Amino acid sequence: MNYGRSILSEVTGYVPGEQPREGGVIKLNTNENPFPPSPRVEEALRELAIEGLRRYPDPVSAGLRRACAERYGYPSKDWVIAGNGMDELLAMAIRAFVDPGDDILTPYPTYTLYETLAMLHGARPVLLDLDDSFQLTESFFQTPARLCFLPRPNAPSGVCTPRAEVEKLCEIFDGVVVIDEAYADFAEDNCMDFPQRHENAIVMRSFSKSFSLAGIRLGTAVARPELIAELLKTKDSYNLNAVTQCLGLAAFTDYEHMQANADRVREGRQYLTESLRRLGFHVPPSQANFVLAEWNGSPSASILFQELKRRNILVRYFPVRRLKHALRISVGAPEENEAVVNALGELIG
Amino acid sequence: MNYGRSILSEVTGYVPGEQPREGGVIKLNTNENPFPPSPRVEEALRELAIEGLRRYPDPVSAGLRRACAERYGYPSKDWVIAGNGMDELLAMAIRAFVDPGDDILTPYPTYTLYETLAMLHGARPVLLDLDDSFQLTESFFQTPARLCFLPRPNAPSGVCTPRAEVEKLCEIFDGVVVIDEAYADFAEDNCMDFPQRHENAIVMRSFSKSFSLAGIRLGTAVARPELIAELLKTKDSYNLNAVTQCLGLAAFTDYEHMQANADRVREGRQYLTESLRRLGFHVPPSQANFVLAEWNGSPSASILFQELKRRNILVRYFPVRRLKHALRISVGAPEENEAVVNALGELIG
Repeated sequence: MNYGRSILSEVTGYVPGEQPREGGVIKLNTNENPFPPSPRVEEALRELAIEGLRRYPDPVSAGLRRACAERYGYPSKDWVIAGNGMDELLAMAIRAFVDPGDDILTPYPTYTLYETLAMLHGARPVLLDLDDSFQLTESFFQTPARLCFLPRPNAPSGVCTPRAEVEKLCEIFDGVVVIDEAYADFAEDNCMDFPQRHENAIVMRSFSKSFSLAGIRLGTAVARPELIAELLKTKDSYNLNAVTQCLGLAAFTDYEHMQANADRVREGRQYLTESLRRLGFHVPPSQANFVLAEWNGSPSASILFQELKRRNILVRYFPVRRLKHALRISVGAPEENEAVVNALGELIG
Repeated sequence: MNYGRSILSEVTGYVPGEQPREGGVIKLNTNENPFPPSPRVEEALRELAIEGLRRYPDPVSAGLRRACAERYGYPSKDWVIAGNGMDELLAMAIRAFVDPGDDILTPYPTYTLYETLAMLHGARPVLLDLDDSFQLTESFFQTPARLCFLPRPNAPSGVCTPRAEVEKLCEIFDGVVVIDEAYADFAEDNCMDFPQRHENAIVMRSFSKSFSLAGIRLGTAVARPELIAELLKTKDSYNLNAVTQCLGLAAFTDYEHMQANADRVREGRQYLTESLRRLGFHVPPSQANFVLAEWNGSPSASILFQELKRRNILVRYFPVRRLKHALRISVGAPEENEAVVNALGELIG
């Protein structure tokens, strides 16, 4: 007998990038940070009282939310919610603001999880093509939906929609606009001030990239308290474990460490962009911690992906429209960036 | 403007028991374990490599699931799923097996989160009264629904539905039967073997109670691989952080430590049950790590709850039908159990 829901019969679930457990691999496939988290994270971990783990964690992550509100210039924790990774917050946004059957607007190509989450909810993902420069087209502003996911910088291109365009979207769009700023700490500017002026704007951040803490699963969202209250309703009772709350807070108090790492990633990004362009790749201007290396030559991008893997260099390849002639390469440590550039140089040349 | 969904307008979200951050409180309100987790948990925490936290965790928690399958006598990790607390698994079961508008069957009274989760999903919670001994009535077996939540031991009574009754339910019931065994390690028997024989049975366990690890948020579910595959579809990509996976595995390898703690909790339960009965409370036979102390005398249970709180003793009071004349008291350390018994003795005079 089949107990599953019919709407799930065609859903395969999101397929994350490979996470090899062995060492010896240059891992540039999931946009992790090549540099370690703040030493304060290690201190906090070493000092963590085991005794405390007997207890349930703070169900509303008050400390983290307060620190976030202060840092981002908001009056109180009521403007902030914390999640088990930004992924949980994306799912909660759908559960809070979208009825099954309703539309969710996203650009294409983009983070494929948006579409998966929409399908899981029984909502209809509406994917609108970005233009040749990975920018929004006019039709994006004219399409009604309950919710819109706008990653800024965009994944997997790394390109940023101009702030003025996002502002225009918040004004025109009838539903909730989720501005996914997972990569914003690597960008020149961001939209963290939008919730002050736009009642429908939610700005989400991740600890996985700039804070070098993908392992602890922590994301935050900032929005008007009315929207946060709706998100809180959909939260698991104790969604954030005690260790993540503790380590996240420790990392957040060392903002300078994160920013210094982000600077180093930006240097690596510039090196990758210039080197790959010199090799003949087309690389859109990225403001994230990865670059999209478009390649119409021979051997194909798909072959390059496999050949890199044979050399223990993992990058990401998406065998879909608009991306099948490209590799998404995370910015690594300097020697990792050189390794992937050198390997690609040999493979194509 | 209101962006929230109309189905959420009446949902307040689950209200967990108070989690005071200060010390000096005898905390018997959220069924935490009074005894510390295995020393192996502390070792694992101290040895945890910070460097690893840069990376995403294993998205499918393979190690934990394998250990679980082995311990519970199942052939492979495909019979197991791990979640961010059992709460996440309960929500996933609804998302995997229930369409909005469909019915979810639960006994009443029980863990109130079931009803909250059903409402959040737009499903219809069908609550059927337990009999005077907190056992299922015949109508429970005759009520069709997509999913049934059966806590065993039941919360908040601590009473166990006989195995034969659960077996009968799995045979008769058309939908999926979630047997919530959050408290099973404190009981005389359990239903962990049911997935071997029943294609619709899911048995869930928690690390929050018997393993003394409420702070790390970890739960597991065992079922036929066909059901686990559906649950996996609804999982957040990286639902379990790296620290929880590591500490959970460490605790699980020291099963003896957990069992010894469970024995001590059983002793405390016996002391509480006998002492409270001597004071005139009616206490159903509990197989969990808490007791329900029913009290129709004066002062009222509600007053007793408040007076205990004034004395820095937290227990749980549910101001709802069938429970408003009762206190749910978690089994604490011996001196905590004595303190609550003595305080109640003085209060009822």
